[in-house]
Amino acid sequence: MTVPGQIDPPPRLLMGPGPISAYPSVLRAMSAPLVGQYDPFMTATMSETQELYRQVWGTRNDATLLVDGTSRAGIEAALVSLIRPGDRVLVPVFGRFGHLLAEIAERALAEVHTIEVEWGQVFPVSVVRAAIERVKPHVVALVQGDTSTTMLQPLDEIGEICRAHGALFYTDATASLGGNPFEMDAWGLDAATAGLQKCLGGPSGSAPLSLSERAVEVVRSRARIEAGIREDGDPDAADFIRSNYFDLGMILDYWGPRRLNHHTEATSMLYGARECARLLLEEGRDAVIARHRLHGDAMLAGVRGLGLTVFGDVAHKMTNVVAVEIPAAVPGDAARTAMLERFGIEIGTSFGPLHGRVWRIGTMGYNARADAVLQTLAALEQVLRRFGASVPVGGGVDAAEDVYAAATRAASQPAEDATAG
Amino acid sequence: MTVPGQIDPPPRLLMGPGPISAYPSVLRAMSAPLVGQYDPFMTATMSETQELYRQVWGTRNDATLLVDGTSRAGIEAALVSLIRPGDRVLVPVFGRFGHLLAEIAERALAEVHTIEVEWGQVFPVSVVRAAIERVKPHVVALVQGDTSTTMLQPLDEIGEICRAHGALFYTDATASLGGNPFEMDAWGLDAATAGLQKCLGGPSGSAPLSLSERAVEVVRSRARIEAGIREDGDPDAADFIRSNYFDLGMILDYWGPRRLNHHTEATSMLYGARECARLLLEEGRDAVIARHRLHGDAMLAGVRGLGLTVFGDVAHKMTNVVAVEIPAAVPGDAARTAMLERFGIEIGTSFGPLHGRVWRIGTMGYNARADAVLQTLAALEQVLRRFGASVPVGGGVDAAEDVYAAATRAASQPAEDATAG
Repeated sequence: MTVPGQIDPPPRLLMGPGPISAYPSVLRAMSAPLVGQYDPFMTATMSETQELYRQVWGTRNDATLLVDGTSRAGIEAALVSLIRPGDRVLVPVFGRFGHLLAEIAERALAEVHTIEVEWGQVFPVSVVRAAIERVKPHVVALVQGDTSTTMLQPLDEIGEICRAHGALFYTDATASLGGNPFEMDAWGLDAATAGLQKCLGGPSGSAPLSLSERAVEVVRSRARIEAGIREDGDPDAADFIRSNYFDLGMILDYWGPRRLNHHTEATSMLYGARECARLLLEEGRDAVIARHRLHGDAMLAGVRGLGLTVFGDVAHKMTNVVAVEIPAAVPGDAARTAMLERFGIEIGTSFGPLHGRVWRIGTMGYNARADAVLQTLAALEQVLRRFGASVPVGGGVDAAEDVYAAATRAASQPAEDATAG
Repeated sequence: MTVPGQIDPPPRLLMGPGPISAYPSVLRAMSAPLVGQYDPFMTATMSETQELYRQVWGTRNDATLLVDGTSRAGIEAALVSLIRPGDRVLVPVFGRFGHLLAEIAERALAEVHTIEVEWGQVFPVSVVRAAIERVKPHVVALVQGDTSTTMLQPLDEIGEICRAHGALFYTDATASLGGNPFEMDAWGLDAATAGLQKCLGGPSGSAPLSLSERAVEVVRSRARIEAGIREDGDPDAADFIRSNYFDLGMILDYWGPRRLNHHTEATSMLYGARECARLLLEEGRDAVIARHRLHGDAMLAGVRGLGLTVFGDVAHKMTNVVAVEIPAAVPGDAARTAMLERFGIEIGTSFGPLHGRVWRIGTMGYNARADAVLQTLAALEQVLRRFGASVPVGGGVDAAEDVYAAATRAASQPAEDATAG
């Protein structure tokens, strides 16, 4: 094998369900020089990043940190740390990632109970309440936004029900965090995890996580400190967590004031994760959500303007991704390939029952921008027509531009009123 | 909280036991634009990176890939995928990271047997052989280079013994790979894992891993495919791996031709890991090891030239790190702090019995360079003297320069002979 040259990726506009194109300043942060694991700058940066993510999550939880791995690593860390073998776990499944939560809970030897709705729908609170009353779970594990269907499960009333029934409430907010409302404390969540590669606008590889005090108590009750660094008086529970890497008690001791060595923190990913949160808070949490809503609405109007049918319950769609049914006459994968190869724009298909049936088009993070939306709609119009679909000329871009124009008018309205007054 | 500015780390020369300063081109690679998860460029880059790491490991193992997490994630992935609950695992412990292997194996519910030597020593092959004969382990888990003591365990004769006794042979090469000889296939290893943050010269957060065909058979026999993407005919073993994230069978299916979705590959870490391997192979695997040996020898001579006593069995020291006893009169942590705060140079202390007793000084990856060695020795001389130690003037730098001069003479010798002939 000849040694290849330096990495030189092709230019891509990533408008799928994620990963998406990272914010340029996140990529720049990734290339900042490394410092040592216990350098005062490193520990200060870890603490600062925790504080930034508390604001992103809407929480005062001390136990707010990053798990070094992809969003799936965050999920597993939360579940294996909270679930004791034999615990009852309720997983309401409304898409592929609900199945994933059930699968991870099964591997943690939970007694897993699932309820399901048809893909494209979310659960009414009453259905979740009835299941909690029936199953009496130790843990309720519920995805907030399932990219496989684009649905956003309302969570705001479920925390109270969990608390009333003694269940811990966990959510996977990978696909939704940053682009949709999220209130860790107000919604009564005990554990939440995410990734950077969706609305947070970074690369996959770091998983923000937050735990309530109730959750920390469960984790602490299962503490086990490894032999090589254990000191007299350190706890060693028989009911230990069956993973070292995902033992959140040890990870908390590393991020906390004791700074007890666990893994070697992934410094470049920390820099990237910090910049994702910093950008979000600099723009403003509500402003970022509003931006996702605006460009998501423009994309939604645009795909409808192209004559495409939107999949699922649009009233419960995430702001940041839309699923459209692939027109019967159009070869879905060939059209996606044409989008990628001829226009450098990536859109996605889906999993399981939706594979080949829908495309998923995202507008998230850095790519929740008008030019990205309009380029995608213009290219999609061309590709649909080339593959034989009948498409209104300019129908996508015009519909999106109407959304932008209406938003501009609405934004200028209060100022005019003030002038008139 | 006021939103802070962009990340701006202080300049540091990282001369501890790792993490160390990354190669500049690795940091540049980290900031390359992202592409989609199934973009042809992405899958080609994954395959290319596998081939690069086959050469780094010295293997033809098809099952050569990256685990998305720190080096500890690689260790856990290998052990939980290979160890069935109740399996006998033999861990010869010669430092802190041997204890870590035992700890991770215990969490995987192995029947763990350890043997130990005093810190600063390695095991004679005969001792390992006797333990294998006695324990009859399913898996032998043995660190190659334990940074806690700087020792390098010879592995070349142990694979054959393992094979003769039906044991799988795993090693953790995190601290050693790239700076010391490593021959996966020739040494009969079944599993090996590493990290980027030592001799490979990258950031923590990606764990290169390789599995022999025997190891893959064990992993495959425990296959379980998650419900959300399972198809008819897919296997579902009762004896499944108790982790989804670290299920190497699923990770292999994601890196292999089937490209079955598992996690979302950490693209920036992939770019960084690729560049680490690319740089190593461009310079040449043997040349990189020779460079680590040269600068490690210079540092070894230098610390002795400063009158410091080297810890442990120097004949079995890794090339890339040296442990020195902290002089009785010198406050070890205050001196390290002075090195960091006044000179911007980081050196390390150690764990457990060696904490506060030794400093560990590394010369690895990008920092296996003469200027880094000489700056460190010059600064250490100043700091030792400031804290009251009696130090030969210029003794460290002079001794290191002697090593470099001898190496230059040796390198020019063949050319002179040729001229004479």
